[in-house]
Amino acid sequence: MSALEKLKSHFQTISNFSHLSAICGWDAASMMPAGGNEARSNAMAELSVHIHKLMTQPQLSDWFDEAEQQSLQGDDSAVLRELKRQWQQNNLLPEKLVQAQSLAGSKCEHAWRTQRGENDWQGFEKNWAEVVKLSQEEAQIRANATGLTPYDAMLDKFEPGTKTASLNQLFDNVKTWLPELIDEVIEKQRTETFIEPSGKFDTAQQKALGLEVMKLLKFDFNHGRLDESVHPFCGGVPSDVRITTRYDENEFVQSLMGIVHETGHARYEQGLPKSLAGLPAGEARSMGIHESQSLFFEMQVGRSDAFIQHLANMAGNTFKGHSPDLFAFDNFQKLYTRVKKDFIRVDADELTYPAHVILRYEIERDLINGDIKHTDVPELWDSKMQQYLGLSTKDNFTNGCMQDIHWTDGAFGYFPSYTLGAMYAAQFMAAMKETVDVDSAVASGDLTAIFNWLSDNIWSKGSLLSTDELVKGATGETLNADYFQAHLRSRYA
Amino acid sequence: MSALEKLKSHFQTISNFSHLSAICGWDAASMMPAGGNEARSNAMAELSVHIHKLMTQPQLSDWFDEAEQQSLQGDDSAVLRELKRQWQQNNLLPEKLVQAQSLAGSKCEHAWRTQRGENDWQGFEKNWAEVVKLSQEEAQIRANATGLTPYDAMLDKFEPGTKTASLNQLFDNVKTWLPELIDEVIEKQRTETFIEPSGKFDTAQQKALGLEVMKLLKFDFNHGRLDESVHPFCGGVPSDVRITTRYDENEFVQSLMGIVHETGHARYEQGLPKSLAGLPAGEARSMGIHESQSLFFEMQVGRSDAFIQHLANMAGNTFKGHSPDLFAFDNFQKLYTRVKKDFIRVDADELTYPAHVILRYEIERDLINGDIKHTDVPELWDSKMQQYLGLSTKDNFTNGCMQDIHWTDGAFGYFPSYTLGAMYAAQFMAAMKETVDVDSAVASGDLTAIFNWLSDNIWSKGSLLSTDELVKGATGETLNADYFQAHLRSRYA
Repeated sequence: MSALEKLKSHFQTISNFSHLSAICGWDAASMMPAGGNEARSNAMAELSVHIHKLMTQPQLSDWFDEAEQQSLQGDDSAVLRELKRQWQQNNLLPEKLVQAQSLAGSKCEHAWRTQRGENDWQGFEKNWAEVVKLSQEEAQIRANATGLTPYDAMLDKFEPGTKTASLNQLFDNVKTWLPELIDEVIEKQRTETFIEPSGKFDTAQQKALGLEVMKLLKFDFNHGRLDESVHPFCGGVPSDVRITTRYDENEFVQSLMGIVHETGHARYEQGLPKSLAGLPAGEARSMGIHESQSLFFEMQVGRSDAFIQHLANMAGNTFKGHSPDLFAFDNFQKLYTRVKKDFIRVDADELTYPAHVILRYEIERDLINGDIKHTDVPELWDSKMQQYLGLSTKDNFTNGCMQDIHWTDGAFGYFPSYTLGAMYAAQFMAAMKETVDVDSAVASGDLTAIFNWLSDNIWSKGSLLSTDELVKGATGETLNADYFQAHLRSRYA
Repeated sequence: MSALEKLKSHFQTISNFSHLSAICGWDAASMMPAGGNEARSNAMAELSVHIHKLMTQPQLSDWFDEAEQQSLQGDDSAVLRELKRQWQQNNLLPEKLVQAQSLAGSKCEHAWRTQRGENDWQGFEKNWAEVVKLSQEEAQIRANATGLTPYDAMLDKFEPGTKTASLNQLFDNVKTWLPELIDEVIEKQRTETFIEPSGKFDTAQQKALGLEVMKLLKFDFNHGRLDESVHPFCGGVPSDVRITTRYDENEFVQSLMGIVHETGHARYEQGLPKSLAGLPAGEARSMGIHESQSLFFEMQVGRSDAFIQHLANMAGNTFKGHSPDLFAFDNFQKLYTRVKKDFIRVDADELTYPAHVILRYEIERDLINGDIKHTDVPELWDSKMQQYLGLSTKDNFTNGCMQDIHWTDGAFGYFPSYTLGAMYAAQFMAAMKETVDVDSAVASGDLTAIFNWLSDNIWSKGSLLSTDELVKGATGETLNADYFQAHLRSRYA
């Protein structure tokens, strides 16, 4: 067996254990009764240790050296590159640091769950200091190994190849037009009237509606399921993708579009190249590309006129006994395109969302690079919120810098993916429209041409290409935020 | 760390991996879409290999030697005994034999799924010859290692300590009175009339009814769930027990009592000693004792007058719009105590079931001990069916010796557990009634006293005692089939 074959086989083994982790993780979030948590946590921790052991076995280093001497054909260069990337990511950090991070992160996150509600910055800051310090150490080690800046080295975990220089340029550009556009749209919407859902919307009916929309979006039910969890997510494995949603009896609007979003993630997973299953090269390219697929479904397709019309019809047919005016096209469109300046990122609309992300990006970038202290964060948050959204978070930590879970356990470098995803999605749609009559396809109810384009250009590529190569291959150019701006202006202005 | 501590820690690790296997196994049977099967099978096989490796690590032998020199206190002797038992069970067989068995078993079982429907004994026999041969080899290796006869060595996997000598005695006794009793009861029931369910019984309502019955039986929903699968089972782990059922829209009788049965298994698991969680000594004592708990719930409590009255009331309240006569106590009792001579074990009633088991026991005993050839089985089956139930299976392999899955992959030694369980259950009930007013407890709807007895005498003991010690501790004597006979006569004659 060649060194590359040995590596492939070893990573298939790792992938088998990751499969079990994914299914049991999904189960813990969607099926497991509370009393099962302790034993499950122990079992999952044992599995993590085992996967880590497999990922750090000493002979792998020799196999990589050997494999790099092989003359490789077809996809094998990319396969080896991604194997090495995943291996390096898992071998860069000393065990001691990983353990210290896990400990400090768990402690900080656990306390945060109470502290956030109590607006207790003082308490939070004490635990968080250690998390930040350890993340800075991690970033420095990654920087030393890769020649990147500390923050770029953290970004690289989620967005391989994406750098601060380009993010600064992208986001600075957004900052030149977004605040003004937000004000303009809010002014325009001020006089609009619309009907919000009221009364009861049976959750079994909401689920039936969700499944109907998933069918329209050609979710492959032979390779996946829809279930419920407190925090919706897309999990499982490509051959068996598990998406979840959360139903609220008082309204169906959020859950319905949430299902469209998760279906985008799911179809990317279901469409990954089967010939590379179990290998890193067969996995999703990056968090940003993953988000581009969910946002393509949710924002590009899901909020298009033709799709809104489908949703309105389906919901109207599902929830008889409510006023038909609720399900009028105009009303549905208004429900799904309402813009509002508010504090909370996860509840933000499409237009204000980038402001929330850019604020976080700028703060975490400077924090990880050591340009600011963690105690500077509340003031910076307040000043940037005022600048981008005209809201003050002074002394409001709950709805300010303590609102997200990400930083509590050191996930620095992740936030940009959300807005990168939105930008990629807009660019993909612009490119797709050059060859596909998207609006007619959606209106006809047969979206095959859209999915074929995504499959050919994105899903089937897995991680064979770099993100830049992928985007250029699909759209003729690397990431260009003009498409995003044009999209937002066309929809909202 | 002492050798025993090392062993405990190692088996906790194994238990963590078994936890993942149990949850993913449950998922495969109850949640997984068909398209997920291939990747799941690979992941589960990888996990099995890993667990086998952990179970056969060379240092364990030294640790056992050392631990046996330690002076042990409290439960530790039993803990060590059961650790060693599980370890020996997993280390007795050469890898090659295990692999050959797995291969031959899979091949035989897979082909059987088609061959059974086609009544194809010739085809089946060819594959089965290898399965039987390998099982005989396994039995001989186990016999050599333990000093038991080959069949006793196989029995020992499922019923530690139970021997052919005592089974012969128990079952020969049953054969002296059962056939006559069956005839008597059938004659008595011949003139009885009753109403069978007809029309539709909504499966969501059936589930709600099942959950209501589980509540009555104090299933702990903080540590378990009810779901659906093609073949009902009780799986998961003690902290998170997953039971399943299968609903038929045309009737609710089977599924409802099936849930009562699985709840018996589940409460045993939920009641195992938490201080020994993850250790063999903390697991269920044997298959027969496990079945005694499900049958205690299904047959002893579940078919008692007072419980039948609860079921009739609950079902009547659930399925409005059906004739109230269907839910009359008398009718329910008749539905649940109907006796019929028939071919199929899994559909058999309480009274004829032992005949099916004894037939199988006698055949597999002689087969494994080499006293008969596998080609003798159809003729023996036919003659014993004629003798015990007055039915001929000549040339009817489908409903004769090819009806069960057990033998297709070599699970010889398992069948006796079913009837041992029924006997233990009857004996437990007789003993319980000496101190607990069972009928009043059931009638009151508060069955706590019953469950306390089971918890104190059975569940909380795990595998700390041998089966004989357990039964003697609970009832004052070792297994005595007279209680079973008395129970059947009292209910049916």
